[in-house]
Amino acid sequence: MSLLEIKSYAAGQWVAPGTGARSFENAVTGEVLGHAGNDALDVEAMLAFARDKGGPALRAMTFHQRAKMLKALAQYLSQHKQALYDLSFNTGATARDHGLDIDGGIATLFVFASKGRREMPDGHVYLDGDVEQMSRSGQFLGHHICTPLQGVAVHINAFNFPVWGMLEKLGPTLLAGVPAIVKPATATCYVTELAVRLMLESGLLPEGALQFVAGGLGDMLDRLTCQDAVSFTGSADTALKLRSNPHLLRESVRFVAEQDSLNASILGPDAEPGTPEFDLFVKEVHREMTVKAGQKCTAIRRIIAPEAHVPAVIEALSARLAKTPIGDPRAEATRMGALVSNGQKRDVLEKAAVIGAEAERVFGDPDAFEVHGADGAKGAFLPPMLFHCADPDKAERIHDTEAFGPVSTVMGYRDLGHAVQIANRGGGSLVASVITHDPAVAREVALGAGAFHGRLYFNDRNSMKESTGHGSPMPHLVHGGPGRAGGGEEMGGVRGVMHYMQRTSIQGSPDMLSAIGNRWVPGAAEVEAPAHPFTRGFDDLAIGETLHAGPREITLADIEHFAEFTGDTFYAHMDEEAAARNPFFPGRVAHGYLLLSFAAGMFVEPNEGPVLANTGLDGLRFMKPVVAGDALNVRLTVKQKTRRTDDYGEVRWHVTLTNQDGEKVAEYELLTMNAYSA
Amino acid sequence: MSLLEIKSYAAGQWVAPGTGARSFENAVTGEVLGHAGNDALDVEAMLAFARDKGGPALRAMTFHQRAKMLKALAQYLSQHKQALYDLSFNTGATARDHGLDIDGGIATLFVFASKGRREMPDGHVYLDGDVEQMSRSGQFLGHHICTPLQGVAVHINAFNFPVWGMLEKLGPTLLAGVPAIVKPATATCYVTELAVRLMLESGLLPEGALQFVAGGLGDMLDRLTCQDAVSFTGSADTALKLRSNPHLLRESVRFVAEQDSLNASILGPDAEPGTPEFDLFVKEVHREMTVKAGQKCTAIRRIIAPEAHVPAVIEALSARLAKTPIGDPRAEATRMGALVSNGQKRDVLEKAAVIGAEAERVFGDPDAFEVHGADGAKGAFLPPMLFHCADPDKAERIHDTEAFGPVSTVMGYRDLGHAVQIANRGGGSLVASVITHDPAVAREVALGAGAFHGRLYFNDRNSMKESTGHGSPMPHLVHGGPGRAGGGEEMGGVRGVMHYMQRTSIQGSPDMLSAIGNRWVPGAAEVEAPAHPFTRGFDDLAIGETLHAGPREITLADIEHFAEFTGDTFYAHMDEEAAARNPFFPGRVAHGYLLLSFAAGMFVEPNEGPVLANTGLDGLRFMKPVVAGDALNVRLTVKQKTRRTDDYGEVRWHVTLTNQDGEKVAEYELLTMNAYSA
Repeated sequence: MSLLEIKSYAAGQWVAPGTGARSFENAVTGEVLGHAGNDALDVEAMLAFARDKGGPALRAMTFHQRAKMLKALAQYLSQHKQALYDLSFNTGATARDHGLDIDGGIATLFVFASKGRREMPDGHVYLDGDVEQMSRSGQFLGHHICTPLQGVAVHINAFNFPVWGMLEKLGPTLLAGVPAIVKPATATCYVTELAVRLMLESGLLPEGALQFVAGGLGDMLDRLTCQDAVSFTGSADTALKLRSNPHLLRESVRFVAEQDSLNASILGPDAEPGTPEFDLFVKEVHREMTVKAGQKCTAIRRIIAPEAHVPAVIEALSARLAKTPIGDPRAEATRMGALVSNGQKRDVLEKAAVIGAEAERVFGDPDAFEVHGADGAKGAFLPPMLFHCADPDKAERIHDTEAFGPVSTVMGYRDLGHAVQIANRGGGSLVASVITHDPAVAREVALGAGAFHGRLYFNDRNSMKESTGHGSPMPHLVHGGPGRAGGGEEMGGVRGVMHYMQRTSIQGSPDMLSAIGNRWVPGAAEVEAPAHPFTRGFDDLAIGETLHAGPREITLADIEHFAEFTGDTFYAHMDEEAAARNPFFPGRVAHGYLLLSFAAGMFVEPNEGPVLANTGLDGLRFMKPVVAGDALNVRLTVKQKTRRTDDYGEVRWHVTLTNQDGEKVAEYELLTMNAYSA
Repeated sequence: MSLLEIKSYAAGQWVAPGTGARSFENAVTGEVLGHAGNDALDVEAMLAFARDKGGPALRAMTFHQRAKMLKALAQYLSQHKQALYDLSFNTGATARDHGLDIDGGIATLFVFASKGRREMPDGHVYLDGDVEQMSRSGQFLGHHICTPLQGVAVHINAFNFPVWGMLEKLGPTLLAGVPAIVKPATATCYVTELAVRLMLESGLLPEGALQFVAGGLGDMLDRLTCQDAVSFTGSADTALKLRSNPHLLRESVRFVAEQDSLNASILGPDAEPGTPEFDLFVKEVHREMTVKAGQKCTAIRRIIAPEAHVPAVIEALSARLAKTPIGDPRAEATRMGALVSNGQKRDVLEKAAVIGAEAERVFGDPDAFEVHGADGAKGAFLPPMLFHCADPDKAERIHDTEAFGPVSTVMGYRDLGHAVQIANRGGGSLVASVITHDPAVAREVALGAGAFHGRLYFNDRNSMKESTGHGSPMPHLVHGGPGRAGGGEEMGGVRGVMHYMQRTSIQGSPDMLSAIGNRWVPGAAEVEAPAHPFTRGFDDLAIGETLHAGPREITLADIEHFAEFTGDTFYAHMDEEAAARNPFFPGRVAHGYLLLSFAAGMFVEPNEGPVLANTGLDGLRFMKPVVAGDALNVRLTVKQKTRRTDDYGEVRWHVTLTNQDGEKVAEYELLTMNAYSA
């Protein structure tokens, strides 16, 4: 096989490796696989390409359009994933590992596409939280909007997940409307390059939305502004170097880091040997030690078990580890492939030696283990290595030394408080897991350890069939952790999109807020409907279009009849004296559902038309009781419109019910599905 | 008057100034007013006092208990505010300025107390967002929780708001459950010290919750961990120095900064001279230039007006500025007091000279202005100074030089895009305002400038009566801005509380999630009710307690009768053929409100009891149509309980309606108010 020459994609051109190129190796054979890097990249032109072309093109799209683009990208990558698999074996990864990296990356794009469609508006401004009522008459209000940064996102990724590592950052970035420059670690940049090339070839991305740097970034970071963002995944040392950059600090450039982590897994006090949880614990720890040959930022480095069960844990784990074939990642029988490089292997051995000074190695000898189908002396192979630390309180380095390979240390705890204390000794981690069947254990750990961990993973006999694994960050959930883990957050659904947007408080009259958010705000001008709004197509309806209906008098007969018909004979509707004793009511009152039902009867247009169905209702509040003799009026206003399918869209109506004195008796939001034209 | 000796409150002791003490001056007379600072403070003991006493005591309280504590603190300070006023005149602040600093600070505490009660749970864990459904059968779910940091918040505050500056940080910190160490700027630390002393004397705070440093922090920052947070307000230079601290960077210690800001105000293209908006603009700019003698991080530094209206703006503003009496802040006629110190005055004059190199001074001569009731040569007085920059595109320093006093520069724009571009030249600001009556102008500015500004303030004839002012950050809204403004966020209601909590993803079975959040999650075990739950008091009800009711068959007669009675004769209920043409329905279906009403009839307990009222309903979704002949079943489960008053609390019920085949037809949450005992 000829050597790979990995080009960068800069300002619309593929640029071949040049001065400063570095080689990378085949993890399985230890031979040089190719070269990447070019010190002569025009960094300023790349930034300008992103800022002047990619940004404006992405910002012109709505969240939903960008979500559709992500979905199409995910589909395109999915169609070409065999090529990614084939190439990826060279990184030492097995087929199972590809499932996490390649399939996991594509799945992440799909989730962001779905979140974008379901949880973000079909527009350009994301509204955060509720309108804040701060003035008496409501003519000056507050709200929060999020708009895309007008710069570029620089993604600096680690070697272990060449595809997922890129896509988990790219999904939220593109959904936000921000162009990206992706810089993977050189060791596996050839896999990332193929994924980038596929995405560019797909023609789905606007020009300037995605660029790719194989090799170093030059002085790119020194050219960033408050409209740019850096998202880094890698070692704590590199993170510290980057985040200490004086220019980034001076300009308050956003910097998100996901770095080292001494993740822990706790065996619950209830999960004794013989329980399903004990077996589950052993299975989870084994998986985390061996998947990706332990090269995962979320892998379990510290195994925390009740002191009494430490021997059983070591025995069960060792037995399972002994049955883990190591070797050629392409072979079907292989359960653990190679580390990414011999350099990485040396680093793991050095760190294992540090751990070995405080803990005894109880499984795995790097000088004596079997490698199947490959040359163990040339490829970057290591056996899983299990340590036991007898005194985790006195130990220091087992809590701060991350051997980024198949290395983990068992330690005993006296009681649950002690287990939490040990887990927190990691000084901030990405994830800690607890295998327990006792919800009280889960709560105690959550309260005691939550502040130290970005994710807490609980598993037991009930959830084990559907659980996603200690080590798998999910796109729906925040990934990142405090302290040693870098203090950053990624993903977490829409939360992750916000890292590439600016949240801005806005203040103004209801009319101003309605115009900015493209969502009607109570107090804003009503738009008079030229006909009953239920007779008008989705596309014709204006935000603020309003129907008034009523009055309809509520009689005592109505209340009694409603009670009898529905069966809701609650005393507040039926018994004047008892109702008057109730602190909320003056006497017998109408049912809340009677009001809702009558209101619908007042505003509904009975004939076939564009309104297809009432699909739901939100935020109903009853504000004032209605008694017999009161007259009901209803106001129905188009609050927001969201296109949902090719055939119909969702209309959110603001509904206010008032009595004969103009007092609000109820308020809610109604959802309907409406055809696009009448 | 004898000199003030401002003590620090450290580890439970008041510590007098000692080595390293610095003097501060009376702004009005220029004389030394007192001393503060002690290099021998035991920093480690202070941190331990907070971490070991304050933190655990605060974390033992619920959010609601902490909110009540904030309210009581605000009430106590309010009772003693005259003492704060009296002392505060020495800082050069007028009675109107006290309104912002002292009353504003107390009001901020009240808002956080209210937000804590209304928007946070009556418990120890804050749940962020919705449960994430990630598995097929729902036995493994995701969610996000927030728990208090287990360390200490170090607040480093600016001189200009000795009370508000402390309280706007202290409110969210204490509500989060985190102890604080407050270090104000020395120049006005004596006012802060009085406020701290009052709060400590009130006896409302647990020991260790609040400490106070007059003078320097020593090496405190070098001793912080990932469980601590630094919140800084002040100059960009100091912020840069602090945030570059290698220890803070290495430990990923949270660091929030609110620093320089070249805030802009834009006169809308529609707001011509003669409109109410033009007059409003002049009024707002005048106020921002003169309140606190311009020593506000949110003050308007750049006045951006249509080129044609620049002369009119200068004329109107100058006329108003000329009628602004400057002098003794205690005098009722005074509209603008002194700057905080003569050092600050010199700094403002230096910066004004920098601005003067690019802009012409059109109002205010620092060498010739009248000072009433004080010695203008000794006190730190300055006149308001208005500049005009003829070429804001070419100019550089007017966009990056913050003269922290009554100094502002008028500049003209060609069109709205140009105005946005000029506003964004500030490189990130705390606030920009737009005075316009045109919602389209508001939207264009929001989209073009949102990413550069932490707050956008719109005002016009409709909102001016209730508007809170360009320069006033509101506790409900986020305060902070990107880039030059520091890239931080403060306040914003619950958002601000989160700066002192860790957000943690949690994964597990519904039972685990229910136990952790103290909120029932669908799929969790149902607790069998010993009696109808409507007969049981709030305090007796268990989370997860469930009632099953039904079946009740829905007949065609029911549907027709409901239609006739309510008036809701929508064709989907009345006309089989037309209904069948609808993409959502198989034929005639029951009204959604019929289902809700019948469900209530099935689960209600008619007699007097602890359930007092149905107050609302959330998140109703209709999932499957119900046709005549279907039978309805209902499941009602206690989801969450929140104590509201001395007499009753709110119960949130999860309600699921199913048909005879066990398929969900609707789901919603019901709110009731319940007496504490049956």
